[in-house]
Amino acid sequence: MNFASDNWAGAAGPIAKALAEQAGGFVPAYGTSDLDKKVEEKLSAIFERDVAYLPVATGTAANALALALAMKPGGIALAHEEAHVVQDECGAPELMMGAGRIETLEGACAKIDPSSLEKHLKRYDPPGLHHGRAVALSLTQATEAGTVYSTDEIAELAGQAGRLGLKVHLDGARFANALVHLKCTPAEITWKAGVDMVSFGGTKNGCWCAEALVLFDPAQRQEAEYLRKRTGQLISKQRFVSLQFQAYLDNDLWLDLANHANTMADRLRSGILASKNARLAWPSQANAVFAILSRHIAEKLQHEGARFHGRTAPSWLDGPIGEDETVFRLVTSFASKTQEIDRFVELLG
Amino acid sequence: MNFASDNWAGAAGPIAKALAEQAGGFVPAYGTSDLDKKVEEKLSAIFERDVAYLPVATGTAANALALALAMKPGGIALAHEEAHVVQDECGAPELMMGAGRIETLEGACAKIDPSSLEKHLKRYDPPGLHHGRAVALSLTQATEAGTVYSTDEIAELAGQAGRLGLKVHLDGARFANALVHLKCTPAEITWKAGVDMVSFGGTKNGCWCAEALVLFDPAQRQEAEYLRKRTGQLISKQRFVSLQFQAYLDNDLWLDLANHANTMADRLRSGILASKNARLAWPSQANAVFAILSRHIAEKLQHEGARFHGRTAPSWLDGPIGEDETVFRLVTSFASKTQEIDRFVELLG
Amino acid sequence: MNFASDNWAGAAGPIAKALAEQAGGFVPAYGTSDLDKKVEEKLSAIFERDVAYLPVATGTAANALALALAMKPGGIALAHEEAHVVQDECGAPELMMGAGRIETLEGACAKIDPSSLEKHLKRYDPPGLHHGRAVALSLTQATEAGTVYSTDEIAELAGQAGRLGLKVHLDGARFANALVHLKCTPAEITWKAGVDMVSFGGTKNGCWCAEALVLFDPAQRQEAEYLRKRTGQLISKQRFVSLQFQAYLDNDLWLDLANHANTMADRLRSGILASKNARLAWPSQANAVFAILSRHIAEKLQHEGARFHGRTAPSWLDGPIGEDETVFRLVTSFASKTQEIDRFVELLG
Amino acid sequence: MNFASDNWAGAAGPIAKALAEQAGGFVPAYGTSDLDKKVEEKLSAIFERDVAYLPVATGTAANALALALAMKPGGIALAHEEAHVVQDECGAPELMMGAGRIETLEGACAKIDPSSLEKHLKRYDPPGLHHGRAVALSLTQATEAGTVYSTDEIAELAGQAGRLGLKVHLDGARFANALVHLKCTPAEITWKAGVDMVSFGGTKNGCWCAEALVLFDPAQRQEAEYLRKRTGQLISKQRFVSLQFQAYLDNDLWLDLANHANTMADRLRSGILASKNARLAWPSQANAVFAILSRHIAEKLQHEGARFHGRTAPSWLDGPIGEDETVFRLVTSFASKTQEIDRFVELLG
Repeated sequence: MNFASDNWAGAAGPIAKALAEQAGGFVPAYGTSDLDKKVEEKLSAIFERDVAYLPVATGTAANALALALAMKPGGIALAHEEAHVVQDECGAPELMMGAGRIETLEGACAKIDPSSLEKHLKRYDPPGLHHGRAVALSLTQATEAGTVYSTDEIAELAGQAGRLGLKVHLDGARFANALVHLKCTPAEITWKAGVDMVSFGGTKNGCWCAEALVLFDPAQRQEAEYLRKRTGQLISKQRFVSLQFQAYLDNDLWLDLANHANTMADRLRSGILASKNARLAWPSQANAVFAILSRHIAEKLQHEGARFHGRTAPSWLDGPIGEDETVFRLVTSFASKTQEIDRFVELLG
Repeated sequence: MNFASDNWAGAAGPIAKALAEQAGGFVPAYGTSDLDKKVEEKLSAIFERDVAYLPVATGTAANALALALAMKPGGIALAHEEAHVVQDECGAPELMMGAGRIETLEGACAKIDPSSLEKHLKRYDPPGLHHGRAVALSLTQATEAGTVYSTDEIAELAGQAGRLGLKVHLDGARFANALVHLKCTPAEITWKAGVDMVSFGGTKNGCWCAEALVLFDPAQRQEAEYLRKRTGQLISKQRFVSLQFQAYLDNDLWLDLANHANTMADRLRSGILASKNARLAWPSQANAVFAILSRHIAEKLQHEGARFHGRTAPSWLDGPIGEDETVFRLVTSFASKTQEIDRFVELLG
Repeated sequence: MNFASDNWAGAAGPIAKALAEQAGGFVPAYGTSDLDKKVEEKLSAIFERDVAYLPVATGTAANALALALAMKPGGIALAHEEAHVVQDECGAPELMMGAGRIETLEGACAKIDPSSLEKHLKRYDPPGLHHGRAVALSLTQATEAGTVYSTDEIAELAGQAGRLGLKVHLDGARFANALVHLKCTPAEITWKAGVDMVSFGGTKNGCWCAEALVLFDPAQRQEAEYLRKRTGQLISKQRFVSLQFQAYLDNDLWLDLANHANTMADRLRSGILASKNARLAWPSQANAVFAILSRHIAEKLQHEGARFHGRTAPSWLDGPIGEDETVFRLVTSFASKTQEIDRFVELLG
Repeated sequence: MNFASDNWAGAAGPIAKALAEQAGGFVPAYGTSDLDKKVEEKLSAIFERDVAYLPVATGTAANALALALAMKPGGIALAHEEAHVVQDECGAPELMMGAGRIETLEGACAKIDPSSLEKHLKRYDPPGLHHGRAVALSLTQATEAGTVYSTDEIAELAGQAGRLGLKVHLDGARFANALVHLKCTPAEITWKAGVDMVSFGGTKNGCWCAEALVLFDPAQRQEAEYLRKRTGQLISKQRFVSLQFQAYLDNDLWLDLANHANTMADRLRSGILASKNARLAWPSQANAVFAILSRHIAEKLQHEGARFHGRTAPSWLDGPIGEDETVFRLVTSFASKTQEIDRFVELLG
């Protein structure tokens, strides 16, 4: 019953197998191998468009690189106040942006509200020497709250930003989980909706260490490569990242893994909905479930071996929380098992 | 006959096996697992001293992090003009240092000459608002020229630097190759000789992606962790890096791998010494061999399947190079085979 | 009738005179002259404590330098969402902080609300690798809304911040205006209330170019000097800045100038209060007056020669604004004249 | 007998007078006044081309801004090893460049040798992800050694750099001194010779605080303005800088001041040439004279009231220096007097 984080899960079988089987041999370093090119072609096919593929070591690096690429002096990136780039990256985007700023937006369920975006865009229309200029909008899909933007929602926000010349970035650490929920194509939810670049995450969904920035404008590749190298993110034996991505993308493994994680989350959500001892903090769609539990119940579950963490109640949370209640985050993954869910729900009562 | 780079080799068997066997299960992320702690303990045992162990994705990141840790405003790091931090990191150290400067030193065989260090240290003694202050000395062991500092040489340079309060960093991308050549202990060649921190590289010596900054003053861990996180180098499933290091360090695998690479290089050096068609550009001791070949011979060898690259002749090169000659770098690794060497030497004639 | 900005006014007579009279002669450069030392002593006397005095070219530079001095990797400075460091410095603090972040607080009348500070401090208690650490609180005195913190208010906020180890900075671009309003001593409103450093502004109050960072912990001087030099803010003929400060501080000229500006603002506030065609947007105490006017009235006044600018209504503004109304800022200075105020009030009707 | 630095001199009479006479009145801030525009027009006339004029507080800031404007990720600026940007700016250019690097070139008399430039340019031709890319060449005119590049020399170096796409920057802290020596036009020695931007210094030549970056491509103005603002270098009452430049440029005052300084230096050089107790360390042409004196003689002169400083002997110095000898720098300025020179020469014997 481990719902601590999808980062705690290991590597999916086919990915581990691919690495083990292709451990040997000599292959050009620094991303110049045939395998690296093949993964780029595979991603181009998946996104129905030529893309540039830039592996990095972490999702934080991918996000930071994306915002750095959009940066200009005095530039400001806009992101939801609960976004990973804001809450969990210790200033890495600001550093890679050359001391840029991230301005925070609001919106229920960790999704940016178009009116909040409008208000902030207005400040920078026109841009100016004193207040600066907005250069990027960063969306998280699926969000940190386990929610998923519809393609229309993405298109609306990207449209607002694009009209003022901002680049639109998608933090896709859980891109696959959003995708399988929406049942749309990767293209529809990205560039067709106005997205310019995606932090394409594999790690949380069954890889060991496979993150990449995917650019829909390959002409930006060279600048992105310089920026990547400058932060020590050009991995010498990059072929091993590409190997992971190859196994991840082949035969739709990535979608299967994400689908499993979401299904497990759905099962957990149903169990919580049916319980008298818990309620959903808010409806989520991807592989993170947020439940309000009394501390007493939470401790009981943890005592029985369940692993999960509490979090601060978000400002947009609808409805009251009792004094002895807390919002808990329960994350499923490709490695979650039906029995774990059922046992958790049974213990919950 | 692949002597292009030790970065082209894959993963050593026991390391690939360890990863494959321990791919599953739930393990705390971000370097907080028991395995991460065990590797730190193992490194402490190896170095005969409590160390802090900070895995990162690349050697560039380890180097940059080390120099960043030593940095102050107006700070200057000193390194050999052919050091990796100078020639091959595209300004990553400068970025992570918060816009610091690397000042270049000279010395034959890519080893810093004490008199060059003395001259540069003098500039910053005393430090000053206009010219700045020297804060770090970075040594490369083994060097980019395949040479190895003796412990006495390290001690002399570190002593000079330490007297003025500089932190001494060792770029140990090929630390194991230097170590097995010197037949000394890891402690003797590092902190006992005045070194404060080591970029401890595993990738070039048989890992996939295993680099770490090792600090001999664990009190600096916290600042180093913040600096690391800020460059997107805190790997979420860090256990997989630690797994590699565990297999790498267990049963002296790392020393065996390095020993093999060096032995192969020795064999290659002997072959070149005996050849009429080539000569050693300079004597080297670790797993990189530098030969002067005519372009004609080089092309013949490459045509027969040998992979290796030319490089600019260093300023300190003794003796003339013919007009149609070039210095070539031939790198052996754990994966090099006796037959490859012998075939190469045979073809060389 | 020029109320556009106190930056539009020239130099006060005694300051211009001092510069003209002491234009010649040879004086050590880069802040090492006797005059520079005398000003530091004068400031020490004024603040009843040994201070370090670091002249810079602009208020932006002083603020940025202050926050840079408090910075650590992953560090976050807290400031009101309407603070100059947030709204008007184009990311200069972030750059000088080495890519730090400023997190914005809320509060009516541009003064930080203790509950907002509490909420944000909580996020960083304890600090952490992912979310970062709070390192500084920046207060603006007088605020951008012309309001003034009482010494008790400063002490409360500084106390909250100090308990968690944050450095407390005061943006004193209009320090003199606040001081003469409060009728307290410079010490009472700064270090006695928990403030660690002050951007001590002279430019808006009758100097040409005289801004300085004043540190109450002179032990930080050396680091501050390196940081200052690194941003091109060590002025070679610094004696001319010190000359301005000398004339500014001698015989309480600075207080007289500020007192005049405030008195003019009071007169303007009274006139607006008595008018049927305008109302105060909020009560202010220093030399900036905020009035709500219809666009029709504003244009009439501007047509008659009055200079002043509109601004966005702040989020904390109490009470409605009509559709054709705007908040206008009217700034008085040492150079404002009673007749100008009276003429403006008369035209307002 | 003050030859310590041209930074020790005060302000020239007409400049002090202009400031005193125009101290009052209301004028738009932040460089938007008519006066600011007039100075830009005057500079455009002087340079026979439309220029953008960006005042900053210091020469260091102007240089740093220039290099920042040329910067790209992984970018490298080239400058003489004795240039001010290398020796005297404490890393300010690197900071403003967003952690760029300055690579040092060699050449006698502090002038870059074309062969040294050639060698360094070669490294970056083609540019690359690992070694980076050369983006700017910075020349100093007159140099730190008091020497002056001929227009042909500038053209040759700028041509080499321009062919590879580098921007060419001129550090003109003593531009006027070079100009009056060369007896050419400002255009001939700058853009007609391939220079893209000039740090146009007034401070050392009789202003108080008047430095500006002058761009020959005004299309870069906007980016430069953002960069300037970000380092706290947008001076609010910029009109006072423009006032100085106006007086400085009117009626060729700047040329007269520089001519006087150079003439004084010539007189000093002649005196030293004729002396048995001193010799010129090298021939210089502008307002800095370098003499080799025994410590005994130097102390005698200093005892008699002469102010001047020793400096390290440059690597390119031709001829031996006695064990008790030192190279001394003697700087003249607009404020130097014939009697001072003659008295010094007389004392020298």
